[in-house]
Amino acid sequence: MDYQKVIEEVYNEVLDENPRGKVATYIPELENVNPDQFGIALVDLEGNVYGVGDYQVPFSIQSISKVHTLTMVFHVFKSKLWSRVNVEPSGNPFNSIAQLEFEKGIPRNPFINAGALVITDALCSKFKEPVKQISDFINEISGQNCVKIDHQVKNSEKNHSERNTAMAYFLKAYKNFDNDIAEVLDVYFSHCAMEMSCVDLAKSFSFLANDGYSIFANREIVSESHARRINALMLTCGFYDESGEFAFRVGLPGKSGVGGGVAAVMPHKFSIAVWSPELNEKGNSVKSVKALELLTDKLSFSLF
Amino acid sequence: MDYQKVIEEVYNEVLDENPRGKVATYIPELENVNPDQFGIALVDLEGNVYGVGDYQVPFSIQSISKVHTLTMVFHVFKSKLWSRVNVEPSGNPFNSIAQLEFEKGIPRNPFINAGALVITDALCSKFKEPVKQISDFINEISGQNCVKIDHQVKNSEKNHSERNTAMAYFLKAYKNFDNDIAEVLDVYFSHCAMEMSCVDLAKSFSFLANDGYSIFANREIVSESHARRINALMLTCGFYDESGEFAFRVGLPGKSGVGGGVAAVMPHKFSIAVWSPELNEKGNSVKSVKALELLTDKLSFSLF
Amino acid sequence: MDYQKVIEEVYNEVLDENPRGKVATYIPELENVNPDQFGIALVDLEGNVYGVGDYQVPFSIQSISKVHTLTMVFHVFKSKLWSRVNVEPSGNPFNSIAQLEFEKGIPRNPFINAGALVITDALCSKFKEPVKQISDFINEISGQNCVKIDHQVKNSEKNHSERNTAMAYFLKAYKNFDNDIAEVLDVYFSHCAMEMSCVDLAKSFSFLANDGYSIFANREIVSESHARRINALMLTCGFYDESGEFAFRVGLPGKSGVGGGVAAVMPHKFSIAVWSPELNEKGNSVKSVKALELLTDKLSFSLF
Amino acid sequence: MDYQKVIEEVYNEVLDENPRGKVATYIPELENVNPDQFGIALVDLEGNVYGVGDYQVPFSIQSISKVHTLTMVFHVFKSKLWSRVNVEPSGNPFNSIAQLEFEKGIPRNPFINAGALVITDALCSKFKEPVKQISDFINEISGQNCVKIDHQVKNSEKNHSERNTAMAYFLKAYKNFDNDIAEVLDVYFSHCAMEMSCVDLAKSFSFLANDGYSIFANREIVSESHARRINALMLTCGFYDESGEFAFRVGLPGKSGVGGGVAAVMPHKFSIAVWSPELNEKGNSVKSVKALELLTDKLSFSLF
Repeated sequence: MDYQKVIEEVYNEVLDENPRGKVATYIPELENVNPDQFGIALVDLEGNVYGVGDYQVPFSIQSISKVHTLTMVFHVFKSKLWSRVNVEPSGNPFNSIAQLEFEKGIPRNPFINAGALVITDALCSKFKEPVKQISDFINEISGQNCVKIDHQVKNSEKNHSERNTAMAYFLKAYKNFDNDIAEVLDVYFSHCAMEMSCVDLAKSFSFLANDGYSIFANREIVSESHARRINALMLTCGFYDESGEFAFRVGLPGKSGVGGGVAAVMPHKFSIAVWSPELNEKGNSVKSVKALELLTDKLSFSLF
Repeated sequence: MDYQKVIEEVYNEVLDENPRGKVATYIPELENVNPDQFGIALVDLEGNVYGVGDYQVPFSIQSISKVHTLTMVFHVFKSKLWSRVNVEPSGNPFNSIAQLEFEKGIPRNPFINAGALVITDALCSKFKEPVKQISDFINEISGQNCVKIDHQVKNSEKNHSERNTAMAYFLKAYKNFDNDIAEVLDVYFSHCAMEMSCVDLAKSFSFLANDGYSIFANREIVSESHARRINALMLTCGFYDESGEFAFRVGLPGKSGVGGGVAAVMPHKFSIAVWSPELNEKGNSVKSVKALELLTDKLSFSLF
Repeated sequence: MDYQKVIEEVYNEVLDENPRGKVATYIPELENVNPDQFGIALVDLEGNVYGVGDYQVPFSIQSISKVHTLTMVFHVFKSKLWSRVNVEPSGNPFNSIAQLEFEKGIPRNPFINAGALVITDALCSKFKEPVKQISDFINEISGQNCVKIDHQVKNSEKNHSERNTAMAYFLKAYKNFDNDIAEVLDVYFSHCAMEMSCVDLAKSFSFLANDGYSIFANREIVSESHARRINALMLTCGFYDESGEFAFRVGLPGKSGVGGGVAAVMPHKFSIAVWSPELNEKGNSVKSVKALELLTDKLSFSLF
Repeated sequence: MDYQKVIEEVYNEVLDENPRGKVATYIPELENVNPDQFGIALVDLEGNVYGVGDYQVPFSIQSISKVHTLTMVFHVFKSKLWSRVNVEPSGNPFNSIAQLEFEKGIPRNPFINAGALVITDALCSKFKEPVKQISDFINEISGQNCVKIDHQVKNSEKNHSERNTAMAYFLKAYKNFDNDIAEVLDVYFSHCAMEMSCVDLAKSFSFLANDGYSIFANREIVSESHARRINALMLTCGFYDESGEFAFRVGLPGKSGVGGGVAAVMPHKFSIAVWSPELNEKGNSVKSVKALELLTDKLSFSLF
C-alpha cells in the first residue's frame, strides 16, 4: 500500500473542495491561529512515517490528550475506574452538566469533560508530579521529546474555566472527585494545552493500532484487551455528540480536539493524525473529518 | 480456526457460570417461553455453519428484524432517509418519547423504536405488500424459507401497542410519517413477530460480514460502503442504551431483541447469532452477551 | 366602585398602547379571525354586567373550557382524580410530552393538554352524553343558552390532532386513560371548539368569585373549599409556562385560550373575561393580559 | 376573630394527628435538633402577637431568609434584576442544575438555590457589609434585635457547599454572577444560618401582609405593588416543587426552609410563622404545612 500517495491524494482533494468551518473562539490563542493550515501524518506498524502539508507544525492537541490520560489510568486502575465513569455515548454536548445530574454524578464516558475530569482526578491520586509524568509518557510513546505545554493557552483556559470548575464541584458533591479541585484543574488545563505535531501525535497513537505495543517505546503500553477497549471507546464516544456520524461515515476509532486535530487508528494497519483549525458546529475539524472519510474510502478499509 | 470447538467451549462456559436475568413479560408469549434455552450458530464466509445448543429452535427475533428492514430501505432511499432519522447513539431507553420531542421529531437512530417506525413507514411507501416482501427478502438472504410470523405474538404486541402508537402519532405531528398509522404498525408488529432460529439469523446477517454480498442469495445485497455503514450503526446503536458497554466489552457490530436473540458480525470473518431468553435490565440477553464476550476473547478478534 | 368607568379606561389605554402579537395559525378558523377585535366584560357578585368593545362577540374559548370540565369532575370525583393528575405548575409548553414520560404518565396539572385529556376522559366515564352535558352545564352557570360548538373549528382541530392523539395513547400506555381514545378526543375537541362571548364567559366564571355559588344557576356549583382550590390551580397553572409571570404581574386566578380569551376572577369581588386574538410567544393574548394588568393596578386589588 | 383560640385549636389538632417526617440530615446541627418541637406565632396588622407551643424558640430559618434578601434587592434594583432571574415555578428540586443549563444560566425564580445565589450576588454588589446589613434589615422589620447567625450551622453548610459552589461557577460561566464566588457564598451561608423564633419571623413578614408597610419599622419597606409581587412569587414558588400543592391545599403565599420553618401571610389580615423540624420528602415541614392547612380551613380564608 502506497500510503504516501494516498494521503497526498486525500490532501489535494480536500484542498480542492475546501470545506470551511469556524476556528474555536473561546480563547484568543485558538482564535488567532492561521485557519488555512492543514496537515496529515500516517504511521504504519513498522514505524514508517508518511506526511503531507503542515504535518510537522505543532498545534494545541486539547481533548486528544484525554486518550493519553485515560491510557495512563486504564493501565493502573482497571475495574475500579469503571464505577466512577461510564462507557456510553453521550448524545449531549461535551460540556453538558444536566446529564451528570440525571445520572447522579457518574459521567457518561471518559471523553466528555466531566468524565475527563474524573480521569485527571484519578491520575492525580496516582502520580506525584502528574503534569511531568503525562509529558514523559507521551514523549515515551512518540519516541521523542515532542511535548510542550503552551502556557498562554493554559492561562487562557484557566480564565474561561467556570464551567469546568462547576463540573468539578458537582462531581465532588456526588463524592466522585478525590483531590483538590484547583490542583486537578491545573493538571487538566496543562494536558489540554499540550502542543504536538501530526507526526508526533500519530506516533503516540501507534500502540492502539498495534494491540497495545508501542514500537517507539519498545514495550507493551496496555494489554491487547485494553487497547481494544480504548479503541471501542474512541469509536463510540470520541467525537462528542457526532460520534455516531463519524463511525457511520469514517468507521475508525479516533479522538478530536477543538484545536482542529483528530487522531485515529486503523487497528493492525496504522495510526494517523490530521489537523486543520476550522471546526463544524459540533466542534470537530471540518477538513480533518473530510480527509479521514476520503482516506477510508480510498483504502477501502474501515473497521467494518 | 476451529469455530465449532470455540463455540462449544463458549457454550459450556456460559452454562457453567449460568448468569441469570428475566424474560420479557409485557406479552404472555415471551413470558411463557422456556428460559433455559440457549443456542449459538456461527456462519463463516464460505457458508459453513457451526452450531451448538438450541441453535435450530425458532424464536421471536423482535428488534433484530430492524436490521433487515433498514437494509431494505437503505438500499432504496439512500441519502433522503437520513433527513428523517439520525445516526447517533441514544443514551435513552429504546422506547423514550422525550428525546423525540427535544429533537423535533427526528429519531436519534433507526434502531430505537421511533426510528424503526420511520424505517417501516419508508418501507410501506416503497413496497406494495411490505410484510410479504420483508419475508421474501429475509428468506432470500438466509437461503431458505425460514421466516414465519407468529400471529399470537403479533396480536399480543398489538394489544400492548399504546406506546408505539403514541410515537407514530408524534412522528406524524412532526410531519415525519407518511402512511396510515394502523397500516404501518401492522407491518411493524408483523416483522417484530417473525420467528427464526439462530442458524437462519446468522445466515441472514452473512452479507454484513462480507462487504454486502450474500453467498446465500448469490448477489450483492448492498454496496460495500453501505454494509460498512450498517455495521457502524449496529456498533454504536445496536444495544439500546447499553451500546457503549457492548462495544467496550465485545467489540462486534450487532443487534439484540427482547426475545433474547443477538445477531452480530465479525467483518470478513463470520456472522453469528446467539439466543437465550433471559434479559438484563437494559433488555439485552444475559447469556447471549456473555457468550459473545467470551467468544471475542477466545478468538482474539474484535473490530479493534 | 365604578367598574364600567375602570374597564373603559383600561380598554382605551390598551388601544392607545396597542401591543401586538400573532394570531394562532395552526387552524384556518383561528388564523382568519379579525385580529383587531378586543372586548372586556366584568360581572360583579350581584350579577351586574359591565362591558366595553367587542364584549358580546362570540369567540373560540379553547382551553378556557378546561376550567368548566375540571369543575364538572372536581365535583364528582373528589380525591380519586388527584391520583391521576397532579397540581404542580409545569414549566414546559402546554403540549409537551417529555414531562409526561419523566413523571410516568401522571400529567403535571389539569390545564396542560395531557392533564385536560385525563379530565375529559374522567368526564366520559361519568356522563352518557358528555358534549351535551358540558354545554348544558355551561349554559346553566352563565344563566342563558349561550354555548355553540363551531364544527368547522372542531373539524380543523381534528385534522391537526396528531400530538393530542399521541398524548392520549401515551396516557393509555401508563394506564391513565379509561375510555376509547377517539371518543374522548371527540369530546375534547368539542369543548375546545365552543364559542362564547366575554359576557357569557364572565358569567360562567362567576361562581369561582363567589365561594362556589352561582347566582345565575341559583345553586352551589362546588363547595367553598373546591372553589378555592380551582382558583389556586388557575393561579399557579392557568397560563401555561407563563403562569408565574401572570401571577407576578396581574395576581388574579385565570385561564387563557389560544383563541385570545382570558377569563379570571377576583374572589369576593367579580369575574371578568377579556378577549383579543393576538397572542404572545407563550400563547397568551397580548391585549388581554395587558388589560388585566392595568385593571388590577387601577383597582388596587389583586389576590395579594 | 379570636386568633389565639384558633391557633391553639390548630396546634392541638396537629399534635393529636401527629404526622411525622424526617429532619434534614445533611448537616449535624439540623440532624441533632429535637424533632418534637412545634410552635406557631401569628401577628395581626396592629402588631398583636398570638403564640402557642415553641413559638419563642430560635431555629435555623434557612431558605426563609431568601424572602428577606429578595426584598432588599427588589427595592433597589427593580426591573434590572428580572433579566437575571425569572419568576416561573420550577417543577424541579430546589438544587437542580439541569434546568439552569436548559435555560442558559437564568434561574427559574429567586427561591430555588441558583436564583437565591443571584439575589445574594446582587446584594453583594449593592452593600458594603452585606451580612451586617441583612441582619440590620431583619432586625428593623421585626422591631427588635432578634437575628443571630449560628456559626456552627454556617460552617457545616460550608463543608457541604459543593453543589452550591458548582451552581455559582455555572452562573458565572453564563455571565450571571458578578462578585467573587467565595465572598458571595459566605454571605449566602450566613443568611441561611440565621436563627429566629416564630414570633420574630412572623413580625418580619408583617409588611407583606400590609401592602409593604411595616408597623415594626414604622416605614414603607416596599411599595404596595412590590409587596404584591413578592407575595405572588411566594405563592407560585415558595415551596420548591410542592408549590402547587401548597397553593392548592393552603392557599397562602409563604416560604419554607429545611430547618422546618414556614412563614406565610394572609394579605390585609396577618402574617404567621410555624415551625417543626420534621420534613416531608419535598423538604417542607410536615407539621407546619398541616397546621397552615387547618388554619385556612378554620378561618375560611385563603387568598381565593
